[in-house]
Amino acid sequence: MRGAILYGPYDVRFEERDEPTIIEPTDAIVSIAATCVCGSDLWPYRGINPVAEPTPMGHEYCGIVEAVGSAVRTIKPGQFVIGSFFASDNTCPNCQDGYQSSCQRREFVGGAQAPLLRVPLADGTLVTTPEVPSDDLLPSLLTLSDVMGTGWFAASAANVERGATVAVVGDGAVGLLGVLAARQMGAERIIVMSRHESRQRLAREFGATDIVTERGEEGVARIKDLTDGIGADSVLECVGTQESMMQAIHSTRPGGSVGFVGVPHGVELSGEGLFSTQVRLHGGPAPVRRFLPELIDLVCDGKINPGKVFDLTLPLDQVPEGYRAMDERRAIKSLLWP
Amino acid sequence: MRGAILYGPYDVRFEERDEPTIIEPTDAIVSIAATCVCGSDLWPYRGINPVAEPTPMGHEYCGIVEAVGSAVRTIKPGQFVIGSFFASDNTCPNCQDGYQSSCQRREFVGGAQAPLLRVPLADGTLVTTPEVPSDDLLPSLLTLSDVMGTGWFAASAANVERGATVAVVGDGAVGLLGVLAARQMGAERIIVMSRHESRQRLAREFGATDIVTERGEEGVARIKDLTDGIGADSVLECVGTQESMMQAIHSTRPGGSVGFVGVPHGVELSGEGLFSTQVRLHGGPAPVRRFLPELIDLVCDGKINPGKVFDLTLPLDQVPEGYRAMDERRAIKSLLWP
Repeated sequence: MRGAILYGPYDVRFEERDEPTIIEPTDAIVSIAATCVCGSDLWPYRGINPVAEPTPMGHEYCGIVEAVGSAVRTIKPGQFVIGSFFASDNTCPNCQDGYQSSCQRREFVGGAQAPLLRVPLADGTLVTTPEVPSDDLLPSLLTLSDVMGTGWFAASAANVERGATVAVVGDGAVGLLGVLAARQMGAERIIVMSRHESRQRLAREFGATDIVTERGEEGVARIKDLTDGIGADSVLECVGTQESMMQAIHSTRPGGSVGFVGVPHGVELSGEGLFSTQVRLHGGPAPVRRFLPELIDLVCDGKINPGKVFDLTLPLDQVPEGYRAMDERRAIKSLLWP
Repeated sequence: MRGAILYGPYDVRFEERDEPTIIEPTDAIVSIAATCVCGSDLWPYRGINPVAEPTPMGHEYCGIVEAVGSAVRTIKPGQFVIGSFFASDNTCPNCQDGYQSSCQRREFVGGAQAPLLRVPLADGTLVTTPEVPSDDLLPSLLTLSDVMGTGWFAASAANVERGATVAVVGDGAVGLLGVLAARQMGAERIIVMSRHESRQRLAREFGATDIVTERGEEGVARIKDLTDGIGADSVLECVGTQESMMQAIHSTRPGGSVGFVGVPHGVELSGEGLFSTQVRLHGGPAPVRRFLPELIDLVCDGKINPGKVFDLTLPLDQVPEGYRAMDERRAIKSLLWP
């Protein structure tokens, strides 16, 4: 089969790879119905995370189970499934606490930008849809594998409550779906920091009530202006740089919460600074598995449509263009059809 | 009158000072019934925080209102009162959110190691007891002004819940009262990190179930051993050094909470590190005012006895010995009678 392989900075190729096979008896092989490019794929694509060797890319997936190992009990061939980028057994103490992305047996699921994917710990990792979904639901179901689950975790980690004032730092796909999540959780006011008109439009569609175009300390000052001088109750940090993290922390009221899901790159926090701001801080790789059942229901019932975040759709063999368009910010997120 | 004044490292003197007077119409003057030395007083005493000029010391207090300014409405002369080390109006948005230590009009209350003290924003800051308390209640009531309120906030910030497993880093007065707080909040298991026998004894009296004598990564490994390999649900950080903060963060399970109340000195946290641990972090100067009504009731009803944390009692004129004994760790905490 052919799949996406990253060789080095700006060098992603669609080329022949071995087909995945069952290695452990707990594995499943999934035939990919749809996949996509993640904002976090851009870190190695841009050379910010070094690439040691040619690496099969992609970790967002949904599709039909092709085969299962001998120890797989609940997942069956023919079922439509969605899973997280971290495989998890869903039984260890961390999984039981809802932190499947810290499963004691966790394993990264890579190589999803291809027609077939090996998923470890299939029973714990994969969640089935009530029936095989129609094609129009695929984009939204695909987002649940990472980007929507991550936006949802950002809002959950930021303790978004009914009636809350929320600020979102970052207008990428995760930030935009953080807006959707905050709206679903009942936020009354959702302030998005964005300078891009098309993203502002989508943010408003997802439930944003205010747009702030200023950044850094000016952006913080605008948020304070909008919130009684004290800051937002909940702030979603969806970028991962020093500037975005400080913007998030300083936009939060004392006792308010920052949910941070942008993978931090070179971020350093001073203990004294955190102490004086009195914010709550929680983040990390999203425990997507925790949210999958609820989010699948919301999508299948037509209550949310996170698939709108895809503004570029390509056949899988054009995956290099999917990366380029996101890198150049011509696209928010690229959907790929195998 | 005579009071404690810090001149420089290890140089605290009990000497003549001006009596405080009403400066703002919202002030009160309190006649001190009992005061004490705080662990945070040791930072300037040891020269770690520089002392720019001779500084009246002490910020923990309870006593009888002597006089009030013309704008004071609810506090009356003759009442017995307790207040926080931060004066607060108790009406601004941050106060309403329960973060009175970030009151928009907050002011530090200093100079309490003396017979008389000026307290700004008296109506917002001071809380009265139901009646003038008997002398045997004074040590416990005094702790509510800071050290007990701070231990309580540590437990509250660490989201201690009924049945939880809690770890406490630091066996100073705040850590020990953090144990008491966690017990009151229903923690089932309370692990204290301590190497001092007298402090271990008091910790057990306050409700500790396990003692860990190891520190650093060895201490973390012991906590993991005791907690299914994943870490404690809630960890109270009551020291403020890089080592203690890392020990606290690494002793917490993914999704668990660190409440940090030790004033950080030179603490730096890596965003990547926090991201990968998935802990919740919340701390800062304790909003003591929020807890005062509840804690006064618990003390007056004989349900808690935090005054046991004082293991040295001196007349106020021997305040230098109170500092020395705590600096040399001969005393956990020094109570001073004016």
